[in-house]
Amino acid sequence: MSQYDVLCIGNAIVDIIAQCDEGFLETNGIIKAAMNLIDAQRAELLYSRMGPALEASGGSAGNTAAGVASFGGRAAYFGKVSKDHLGDIYTHDIRAQGVAFDTRPLDGEPPTARSMIFVTPDGERSMNTYLGACVELGPEDVEPSKVEGAAVTYFEGYLWDPPRAKEAIRQAAAIAHAAGREVSMTLSDSFCVDRYREEFLELMRSGTVDIVFANSHEIKSLYQTTSFDEALAAIRKDCRLAAVTRSEKGSVIVRGDETVAIEATAIRELVDTTGAGDLYAAGFLHGYTQGLDLKTCGNLGSLAAGLVIQQVGPRPRQNLRQEAMKAGLL
Amino acid sequence: MSQYDVLCIGNAIVDIIAQCDEGFLETNGIIKAAMNLIDAQRAELLYSRMGPALEASGGSAGNTAAGVASFGGRAAYFGKVSKDHLGDIYTHDIRAQGVAFDTRPLDGEPPTARSMIFVTPDGERSMNTYLGACVELGPEDVEPSKVEGAAVTYFEGYLWDPPRAKEAIRQAAAIAHAAGREVSMTLSDSFCVDRYREEFLELMRSGTVDIVFANSHEIKSLYQTTSFDEALAAIRKDCRLAAVTRSEKGSVIVRGDETVAIEATAIRELVDTTGAGDLYAAGFLHGYTQGLDLKTCGNLGSLAAGLVIQQVGPRPRQNLRQEAMKAGLL
Repeated sequence: MSQYDVLCIGNAIVDIIAQCDEGFLETNGIIKAAMNLIDAQRAELLYSRMGPALEASGGSAGNTAAGVASFGGRAAYFGKVSKDHLGDIYTHDIRAQGVAFDTRPLDGEPPTARSMIFVTPDGERSMNTYLGACVELGPEDVEPSKVEGAAVTYFEGYLWDPPRAKEAIRQAAAIAHAAGREVSMTLSDSFCVDRYREEFLELMRSGTVDIVFANSHEIKSLYQTTSFDEALAAIRKDCRLAAVTRSEKGSVIVRGDETVAIEATAIRELVDTTGAGDLYAAGFLHGYTQGLDLKTCGNLGSLAAGLVIQQVGPRPRQNLRQEAMKAGLL
Repeated sequence: MSQYDVLCIGNAIVDIIAQCDEGFLETNGIIKAAMNLIDAQRAELLYSRMGPALEASGGSAGNTAAGVASFGGRAAYFGKVSKDHLGDIYTHDIRAQGVAFDTRPLDGEPPTARSMIFVTPDGERSMNTYLGACVELGPEDVEPSKVEGAAVTYFEGYLWDPPRAKEAIRQAAAIAHAAGREVSMTLSDSFCVDRYREEFLELMRSGTVDIVFANSHEIKSLYQTTSFDEALAAIRKDCRLAAVTRSEKGSVIVRGDETVAIEATAIRELVDTTGAGDLYAAGFLHGYTQGLDLKTCGNLGSLAAGLVIQQVGPRPRQNLRQEAMKAGLL
């Protein structure tokens, strides 16, 4: 028996979300749809140019943990905040969602991480992340009992950006596998893949990671190809199980020779794509850790992603368990 | 010529917004749909019981100022925040919306005000406000040149809760009238009306206030009657111009013998009523200060209120000027 269904590890970030037009991205040198890393000085500059905003707890793996808990799964989270107001908000929100979160907060500088997210009229989000306290996440933050007790330990590729988080991940993966558990990752962002391509491939090929989440841009970046089919064929060989999202085309799940195509759910209005991939992973991993078939896992992912993109912010306000039951998936 | 169309004065509050079920309100002794005043200790207790939340700049008159600016009007705001993170967020958001905001922030305790807003499945919001730095707003915060330069000075009845804000209002009203300007207020909340009934009536009957905004509950509370028609007849006599909102029944505007009925705009989904009255006032006052007829003023109010209740948070993310042009109102 596992104590947790999914343990998520990631950069603990508070999102600051505003609307902007396309010209704003260009004027300010923001790469559209990407996660742009910024320093404290640029954070201040961009904030001074940013429109009225909403604040919401985010962070890719944090959103996934919150999603798993909203589906009724047992979730835990490792991530580093600072002892400041944003850190308090982050801690409140993830615990209030029912996620076990006990990572020791940083006492002093740097402050809790924040990402300024600009949402263009097409609903696409462009992130500008100041990593703050996340740079202090290290192996000492791995709680071995939680890793041993989690059916799946899931982490974000973004963790290769801060200096010592990757050590934490390798340690957690070793503990998980020694306990007979599975390890999963998301490739996070095509530019992130570009920064750490060889290391990500090594994680997959060495068996450090069993289950990979990615979108079509990320797997094409991973294999440096413009062909989705070529990238899909490659990832099928490199990991045991992969779920690849394709925006409005749905997703495709590959496991050995098996291929399962999943449709995107119908949406009424695309408002903000923030959290789409994170919530897909939440739905999928919830189904997976409940022993459901891959088709249902994918449909749970689509359901959660479809809900989050119809609202502002990275975590759906609906109870995902109720939504899944309404949709006949649970 | 006026320098500003609308100067708004109010409690500067950051909203902390979460969903809850009906039972939560009862268990925690929260009066539904009302503004419940709380102290720091109860704020801590309620936050510990609150679900995952979003943070957004709010405050009734602050929302109205932001709405006027979003319509393209020239807006200014007086309100007291503290020099802390929530105060920075508040200041950023209202200035980023184009509102002139220069009230000197409080250096030290108490912290910036926050309101925990619980939204039930019916979309109704129940507020729990810790006034924090707002208790320090006083006559010294009135900037005479802004009052003299504003076509309408608008304030919230909620300002009768902190100890010295009412002095600021009486002073601002005197300056405004001496400059030939108009003064407007919202009755804010039926329980607030209950606390300050005689003073609010005196503000109207003495001519300190020219234009009154209220909803049907508030005017019934003001005149201690269960009859809407009776209350409407009474307010018609007590102020020069009144706009009374009636939720899905729209609103009614009375000025002397004149009566203008306004329909509510059709909505797709009621998500969160927070800000409905504030945005109605924004639309109305924008039209009014542009010299538009009362029908159009009311329709602009309905448009803005209809937009804000279809999203989480107290200020619509849409550009209201564009929305009004699409609707043929500007």
